[in-house]
Amino acid sequence: MSDMTPPWEQGVFAALKAENLADWRAYTDHAFVRGLGDGTLPEACFRHYLVQDYLFLIHFSRAYALAVYKSDSLEDMRQAAATMDALLNEEMQLHLRYCVQWGLTEAEMAQTEEASGNLAYTRFVLDAGLSGDLLDLLTALAPCVAGYGEIGLRLASQGGADIAGNPYRDWIETYAGDGYQSVVTAALAQLDRVASARIGGDICRSGRWKSLSKTFGAATRLEVGFWDMGLSPNHAG
Amino acid sequence: MSDMTPPWEQGVFAALKAENLADWRAYTDHAFVRGLGDGTLPEACFRHYLVQDYLFLIHFSRAYALAVYKSDSLEDMRQAAATMDALLNEEMQLHLRYCVQWGLTEAEMAQTEEASGNLAYTRFVLDAGLSGDLLDLLTALAPCVAGYGEIGLRLASQGGADIAGNPYRDWIETYAGDGYQSVVTAALAQLDRVASARIGGDICRSGRWKSLSKTFGAATRLEVGFWDMGLSPNHAG
Amino acid sequence: MSDMTPPWEQGVFAALKAENLADWRAYTDHAFVRGLGDGTLPEACFRHYLVQDYLFLIHFSRAYALAVYKSDSLEDMRQAAATMDALLNEEMQLHLRYCVQWGLTEAEMAQTEEASGNLAYTRFVLDAGLSGDLLDLLTALAPCVAGYGEIGLRLASQGGADIAGNPYRDWIETYAGDGYQSVVTAALAQLDRVASARIGGDICRSGRWKSLSKTFGAATRLEVGFWDMGLSPNHAG
Amino acid sequence: MSDMTPPWEQGVFAALKAENLADWRAYTDHAFVRGLGDGTLPEACFRHYLVQDYLFLIHFSRAYALAVYKSDSLEDMRQAAATMDALLNEEMQLHLRYCVQWGLTEAEMAQTEEASGNLAYTRFVLDAGLSGDLLDLLTALAPCVAGYGEIGLRLASQGGADIAGNPYRDWIETYAGDGYQSVVTAALAQLDRVASARIGGDICRSGRWKSLSKTFGAATRLEVGFWDMGLSPNHAG
Repeated sequence: MSDMTPPWEQGVFAALKAENLADWRAYTDHAFVRGLGDGTLPEACFRHYLVQDYLFLIHFSRAYALAVYKSDSLEDMRQAAATMDALLNEEMQLHLRYCVQWGLTEAEMAQTEEASGNLAYTRFVLDAGLSGDLLDLLTALAPCVAGYGEIGLRLASQGGADIAGNPYRDWIETYAGDGYQSVVTAALAQLDRVASARIGGDICRSGRWKSLSKTFGAATRLEVGFWDMGLSPNHAG
Repeated sequence: MSDMTPPWEQGVFAALKAENLADWRAYTDHAFVRGLGDGTLPEACFRHYLVQDYLFLIHFSRAYALAVYKSDSLEDMRQAAATMDALLNEEMQLHLRYCVQWGLTEAEMAQTEEASGNLAYTRFVLDAGLSGDLLDLLTALAPCVAGYGEIGLRLASQGGADIAGNPYRDWIETYAGDGYQSVVTAALAQLDRVASARIGGDICRSGRWKSLSKTFGAATRLEVGFWDMGLSPNHAG
Repeated sequence: MSDMTPPWEQGVFAALKAENLADWRAYTDHAFVRGLGDGTLPEACFRHYLVQDYLFLIHFSRAYALAVYKSDSLEDMRQAAATMDALLNEEMQLHLRYCVQWGLTEAEMAQTEEASGNLAYTRFVLDAGLSGDLLDLLTALAPCVAGYGEIGLRLASQGGADIAGNPYRDWIETYAGDGYQSVVTAALAQLDRVASARIGGDICRSGRWKSLSKTFGAATRLEVGFWDMGLSPNHAG
Repeated sequence: MSDMTPPWEQGVFAALKAENLADWRAYTDHAFVRGLGDGTLPEACFRHYLVQDYLFLIHFSRAYALAVYKSDSLEDMRQAAATMDALLNEEMQLHLRYCVQWGLTEAEMAQTEEASGNLAYTRFVLDAGLSGDLLDLLTALAPCVAGYGEIGLRLASQGGADIAGNPYRDWIETYAGDGYQSVVTAALAQLDRVASARIGGDICRSGRWKSLSKTFGAATRLEVGFWDMGLSPNHAG
């Protein structure tokens, strides 16, 4: 495969996606995503999403901290620690600065209650990680990490000249950018490496494949639920 | 206090409930509950609830297993193990027999996907337990354990002579019955004991009280979400 | 294989043992074990061992509670819960009654400090379980469960007529008895089943085999350390 | 209190130390420590210690990762993440460079088996953290973090002019240095803050104090065991 093939079309991730294609499309081509792409998403929806995403990032950082704890090699510990550090000390700061532009303060966001769809997603990932092993945890984390990369790149390429007037341009360019894309590449390379170490051989024909695919599917549907939540800014759930 | 005072009007539990009274009422006096009480709840709603409750019991059993692991005395280990055993080997069997009367088989239920509100609740409890200590875990479990006892007793006393014709009579009498009521009494006694061991002194004025009350409130609202889910049998969430 | 083949000569367990044979022999043919077999073990050593074994059983019960939490099928949950219940509510009671014969009270034992070799073993198992998955946990538990079965059966058959005068006869007959032997059979059947579910195919050639074998070896050496501790009743470690 | 008071003479830590003073002295004034201070420690002992300390740092990093997962505020997450990062990406590199001076390679150290006293200590800390809450975890971590700071500072001040010829000068100056001392200050400030949040009021009179003091004492004795292990370079345990 050439270097031009995005990481989500390769290895274990591509196989997981192929088995959950309908859910994957419902997630990556959600009405919320299309609204971001053409700039028609109502601002109230985006603001609601931003606040919940801030709370989401806290628990996603906790999940990567768990991945450090669950690693059995220094290489895996350092990879997970780097992702955790990027989330906790860079992404969250970027997110905060971005939220300020939309009139949202950190104090305000920190006091907002987590929506049910947010709770469901983040706690599902944490429990998948604690009850399973590092491979279960990385599998539950993968749809978020890679999906945002795929969405960002597609919206950026579709946007063309119109992106200049899109109020969500910054969001799109963040996830389409080299910085985020290299996070995705490293995360999916780790998924492949850990799958070899924890299963080996023909992973997709192993006794464990069905369970991994189920975890991936559940996490993908929880991403769909997260966009649904974004579209309902006045609903608590 | 006399022996007639129900356990949920005493000790740490009563104080937690007092701080979250609006949420508590939204849960224990939910439209779903009123529909159970007067028999007007549509059967499709009840069947939807029964299936999700079966899946819920699996994860609640896991939460009590976690409480055994997290106990630092044999007394607490045995109390949590007894509750886990009651859930895993008695309640679930009762539940299954009851479901059969409503035409639901175990195989069918085991293959049903967990609704988002179900995931949110069960995984929230598990994460509260793993990230916190035994007291955080028991606090997150308490609204379910005690709320069903309070609801069962109230519906049974309100039902009067009409209960004979109520299709949900068995459900009501299970939770109003001595067996379940003694489970509640033992669980809330453990909550008091563990709160003394993990905080001591004036628990409600401790530095930790606000955090416990927040956990209790979140779990109570997730119970509201569970009833909401029951009322929407055709909605995936 | 015939029914006469003991469970520890079959399946995944036999393969793990074969890869760690020197450690396995150092454990199952330890001087402490030989002293139990011919009755020459000094009483002070046995009493020291009994007290630490009481503390050990508490943490082994916690490890089986963790296995319930980490199970992803009701069958595995119930198997682990049954073992936990057997440890917590039967073995510990038997152990206590047995200790009373040797002049040891529960209060005394509960206040004894855990020896370092005891801490090392029990906490290693718990961490192997929490950082890994159910298969890692069951692999770390297996040397204890099966080793006592193998030791009990061998000492009973070697003892012959002399066993009548052996002060450790009860200990030997407990682990050689049908009750304990059936615990071993069920535990190793679960190990095989979970290995299929979590790896599948040719388990010993999988990418994960080396890691499982390492965990098994470490747990076996910690059993050696436990017997060493038993032989040094006046040493804190 | 003046700024000159070292952090281990203040707050919660000082109270924990006061309750475990005999153990604390056995740890901080151990024969191994005295041998470091006057340069008489046999090189074989120091090399044995260095290898085990390398393995120790891996699991201590995992414990701080767990502290990130268990934090319920961004401030605590970031403090724990900074300590984890310092251990995983700075201390371990320093340690490796230092080991090279003593003829030890990373590959060699990574393949060395963890000594029993090392397993006992690291896994005790991890289990204390997972079964308890963040305060239990920080309490189990505190003797190591602060003890090395106290030892380093005392040996540096005692060494006087003789330190120039002490083969362990680098070790002493690392832990006496401003870099490490500020790590201690931040860690003990977090211990105070978390103790307020998780107990509040008069911490030493709370129901939980006895349990915290017991955890602190056990961890301190495991440090004594670690030095003992250092003095026995030819013994596996």
